[in-house]
Amino acid sequence: MTKLKLALCQIKVTDDKDKNISKAIEMIKKSADNNADIAILPEMFNCPFENPKFIEYSEEINNSKTLNAISKIAKEKKIFVLAGSIPEKIADCEKVYNSSFLFDDNGEIIANHKKMHLFEIDIPGKVHSKESDVISPGDKFTIVETKFGKLGIGICYDIRYPELSRIMALKGAKILFYPGAFNFTTGPAHWELLFRSRAIDNQVFTVGVAPAVDESLSYQSYGHSLLVNPWGEVLIEADENEQLIFQEIDLKEVDKIRKEMPLLKNRRTELYDINFK
Amino acid sequence: MTKLKLALCQIKVTDDKDKNISKAIEMIKKSADNNADIAILPEMFNCPFENPKFIEYSEEINNSKTLNAISKIAKEKKIFVLAGSIPEKIADCEKVYNSSFLFDDNGEIIANHKKMHLFEIDIPGKVHSKESDVISPGDKFTIVETKFGKLGIGICYDIRYPELSRIMALKGAKILFYPGAFNFTTGPAHWELLFRSRAIDNQVFTVGVAPAVDESLSYQSYGHSLLVNPWGEVLIEADENEQLIFQEIDLKEVDKIRKEMPLLKNRRTELYDINFK
Repeated sequence: MTKLKLALCQIKVTDDKDKNISKAIEMIKKSADNNADIAILPEMFNCPFENPKFIEYSEEINNSKTLNAISKIAKEKKIFVLAGSIPEKIADCEKVYNSSFLFDDNGEIIANHKKMHLFEIDIPGKVHSKESDVISPGDKFTIVETKFGKLGIGICYDIRYPELSRIMALKGAKILFYPGAFNFTTGPAHWELLFRSRAIDNQVFTVGVAPAVDESLSYQSYGHSLLVNPWGEVLIEADENEQLIFQEIDLKEVDKIRKEMPLLKNRRTELYDINFK
Repeated sequence: MTKLKLALCQIKVTDDKDKNISKAIEMIKKSADNNADIAILPEMFNCPFENPKFIEYSEEINNSKTLNAISKIAKEKKIFVLAGSIPEKIADCEKVYNSSFLFDDNGEIIANHKKMHLFEIDIPGKVHSKESDVISPGDKFTIVETKFGKLGIGICYDIRYPELSRIMALKGAKILFYPGAFNFTTGPAHWELLFRSRAIDNQVFTVGVAPAVDESLSYQSYGHSLLVNPWGEVLIEADENEQLIFQEIDLKEVDKIRKEMPLLKNRRTELYDINFK
């Protein structure tokens, strides 16, 4: 099975958890009705992107209104769902993670990625954020075997690290998913560039799904959910408004491009390599 | 000394070595007359980009018409010259390298980079090249201390490897130079993208200098010599014709951007790292 259809759910995340969950369910239903194989939700799709909100909105995995709702609809509509991320609380150690969950079409969680690189920026007069004030960093690479082949999952700032995408590609991932929420400073400058760059370096598909802009929130998401092929072409890209967009891809394209220009084979691993746990 | 002026010499390389050398000398003179600190020449600036020509045009470092001419003009005009690359013959081991030389303003060679990753592409009906049929690969990273700070040097296909640019940045290089010669298939698709991507990942300046297009040759260089700042903005870019373009930069910008968004500091080196010789 090399052909699949992806649904990029660019939800307008508001300061109302129930409304955010309902919107996610609605978009997943529409994705399934349009024969998508995987519906992808944005980073922090149930919660505004603000440090205090991460605490307030956080849920434990075994008692999660959000994840229970996603599991139910995934099973009912027989669709894979990459639930971009939610703030996940682990009460025992008093930690909150920026945590992504991949559900299979039985509604089972088959992968959980905890954001490894926490966003830190301070451009005076433009944007300030320090995620690590409230969020703990994950320690695991997330590459998961599915009926579509191996998928790699990172979250937002994770995409800025070429080491991570390389590791996921070397471990066999042919699609790299990065739910994200860039802003209007970093977004126009770097969002598309990063997805295109990780795609051509590793000769993989890359997918980014972001919240739509909501001007009532303090942190403005840039939107622009997109899908890039292994030659670095943007096959589909949203603007900043709420929307659901679809793209079919064929994973054979990865093998074709790697045959035409054998980038990974030509690495000089006798001179350098990426070590990882 | 953090401010410097770079001269990008986009030479139209022909199938006439003497003409190519004269053109290089002329452009270096103009660069010095315009107060440039470093003049940068293209990959294979004395030789058409074709495997048989690499052999025919190759020179030994101790008896090199090309390098002697560059040394002389660098000293005379008191200008640094990054002599993009030439085919360098090492007779003792019967090898030819794609080899770049950095001359200081006394005409002394202070760095020599031998291309580490050899270009390999086979897109039926579009482009075919296998550099390793005649060129041997270099085994050394090239980061050199100068009065302008540390400079990193790669050649063309080397830029496709994020490991190499990361290593040069971690070793302190604030400008990465990649003389190159992309073609009309890879150029429009990837040339600018790669220079912008290496710049933002490592928060450094990147500089690419290519031959101008010459339609009489079998391999058509894409041209588009360019300079990118650490925020990923293209400060200057040529078209495909012969031209000499200048850009002043301030290396303080590297420190400023790294303070605003501490990408390198936020690497998770307890989980992964790049090992190198």
